[in-house]
Amino acid sequence: MKGLLEALRFDAQGLIPTIAQRFDTGEVLMLAWMNAESVRETLETGLVCYWSRSRGKLWRKGESSGQVQRLVELRLDCDGDTILLQVEQTGVACHTGRTSCFFTAWRGGALVELSAPVVAPETLYGTAAPPGVP
Amino acid sequence: MKGLLEALRFDAQGLIPTIAQRFDTGEVLMLAWMNAESVRETLETGLVCYWSRSRGKLWRKGESSGQVQRLVELRLDCDGDTILLQVEQTGVACHTGRTSCFFTAWRGGALVELSAPVVAPETLYGTAAPPGVP
Repeated sequence: MKGLLEALRFDAQGLIPTIAQRFDTGEVLMLAWMNAESVRETLETGLVCYWSRSRGKLWRKGESSGQVQRLVELRLDCDGDTILLQVEQTGVACHTGRTSCFFTAWRGGALVELSAPVVAPETLYGTAAPPGVP
Repeated sequence: MKGLLEALRFDAQGLIPTIAQRFDTGEVLMLAWMNAESVRETLETGLVCYWSRSRGKLWRKGESSGQVQRLVELRLDCDGDTILLQVEQTGVACHTGRTSCFFTAWRGGALVELSAPVVAPETLYGTAAPPGVP
């Protein structure tokens, strides 16, 4: 993993922007941040782990919601300062219950919602989750 | 454009990470940064304009290489701190002459080049450009 970590250019906070894309459909799911530790864990476990800037700790994607991302391939860009993850997404990527976080578009001078939640956030995170839901 | 600029959460430097994706194939081309001015110009002209952090000025993509990006749609993510541009890419997105900047993968413990340049960088930027090349 040494060659990879040396090729990555982390910013002054030790972070690197990371795009998650569905490996099969090409849908861009989200952008989050990784640090060296989360890159290491992701490659070791095969499950995507980010760094949460708001919580200041490792963010094992899907830990509370069950909506994990299995790593298919890690790619980096030409100057090593961005990561692109090809992932297999279980369920939805967005905490709002939508498949992708990019569900809002600017069209004709207004913000337009492109998709509705396919699962209620309460189902993902709340106590209202029915038995059997991860 | 007011509703959009208000919905975007620029960082402390007034910037927002911006993903460019081909609108037709879904290929992720690059990640760059925009500020309010470049968002405004992009929407007004229909040609993608970033903010170059290294040069500290507007970066009209393709200005010197001819490899412009026509804006098809601007999207933002659930918390407004990332932009996803659906673009029509003329030629190649990467300054190395490859279609995408994400041409390097980590496979089996080594960095692997996924694609070769389809056009020589000298042709894009240098004086070696043959007549007729933009």
